[in-house]
Amino acid sequence: MNSGQVDYFFDYVSAYSYLVNGQVEKLEGAKVIYRPMLLGAVMQATGNRPPGAVAVKGKYLLADLKRWAKRYGIPLRFNSVFPQNTMKALRLSIAAQRRGVFHEIHPAFFEAMFVHDLDLSDSDVLAKIISDAGLDAGVLMSDIESESIKDELKKNTEEAIRRGTFGAPTFFVGDEMFFGNDRLEFIQEALQRDD
Amino acid sequence: MNSGQVDYFFDYVSAYSYLVNGQVEKLEGAKVIYRPMLLGAVMQATGNRPPGAVAVKGKYLLADLKRWAKRYGIPLRFNSVFPQNTMKALRLSIAAQRRGVFHEIHPAFFEAMFVHDLDLSDSDVLAKIISDAGLDAGVLMSDIESESIKDELKKNTEEAIRRGTFGAPTFFVGDEMFFGNDRLEFIQEALQRDD
Repeated sequence: MNSGQVDYFFDYVSAYSYLVNGQVEKLEGAKVIYRPMLLGAVMQATGNRPPGAVAVKGKYLLADLKRWAKRYGIPLRFNSVFPQNTMKALRLSIAAQRRGVFHEIHPAFFEAMFVHDLDLSDSDVLAKIISDAGLDAGVLMSDIESESIKDELKKNTEEAIRRGTFGAPTFFVGDEMFFGNDRLEFIQEALQRDD
Repeated sequence: MNSGQVDYFFDYVSAYSYLVNGQVEKLEGAKVIYRPMLLGAVMQATGNRPPGAVAVKGKYLLADLKRWAKRYGIPLRFNSVFPQNTMKALRLSIAAQRRGVFHEIHPAFFEAMFVHDLDLSDSDVLAKIISDAGLDAGVLMSDIESESIKDELKKNTEEAIRRGTFGAPTFFVGDEMFFGNDRLEFIQEALQRDD
């Protein structure tokens, strides 16, 4: 058996990341490493374009996202401010990882974006999401002013690009890359393979 | 129940169409209508780009295609001449439909492209594929000079674009569109839904 490590690169701006987020812990034998990254920087570095750049593709994706939300049994409501700058939210998730409270706040950021129609670029909105999750907003908001946390987000993003990422969500099992919410079965197979 | 009709738009140049082609008849209660279309014209009309336009995406797709081929238990060998002009092959598949011999020749065109490394833009190659399938190559090759067959390919392509297609394979159940080889479960659900 391999180590079971799954590197899971995501951004709160990615609807397919929101969809898959509740599914990744269901992978058997997986040790999921959550890797916040800036999707915009990945798109720019690779020359990839958001699906909405092709009008009919954007329209189709809305229907596809709804089908997956229904399949997973989760709510989905498109945000009225889109796309958003998720830099601060991603830094907050790194700060929360360091303080051991990541899982208390991480799903809340996704739900803020794809269920509650909130603006994650707004510091007041972020602080309220954190408080509502029962955490100390002041501590985390002050954490993300540190260069160390800014650097970690940059390094995550650079690593994702170096390893071949062109969108989100992207998963790695060793050197094998998997893109999208709809490749979990292949990831499970990779985890069960002897290396 | 709905009518069970599934419009299946494909092009022999599309690797994901090749992959799914052996799966579509497994849809329960489906009446599959095979609709050859010119993928290049669809891309041009919608502003969509082939995945290989983003280098890392192209590289990933090769790995993804191999995973699906393994899952389906079919061979896959990338063609040394790619992309190819599949206009004549698509017209031949329409001619074969009219003569009631479509299923004798249709899989052979896909295999010529994605298993046997043949050049489908070459009339001699096409004639040999047809003969090897036990059909009269002269008859079909002469059929595709007719305006009526050229028109049908044009009309298929225009209809695909009008209905929202941006790639291949694309399926329709009524007004519902499904893109890719990996949406068969959603198509099955749509077929089983009461309209």
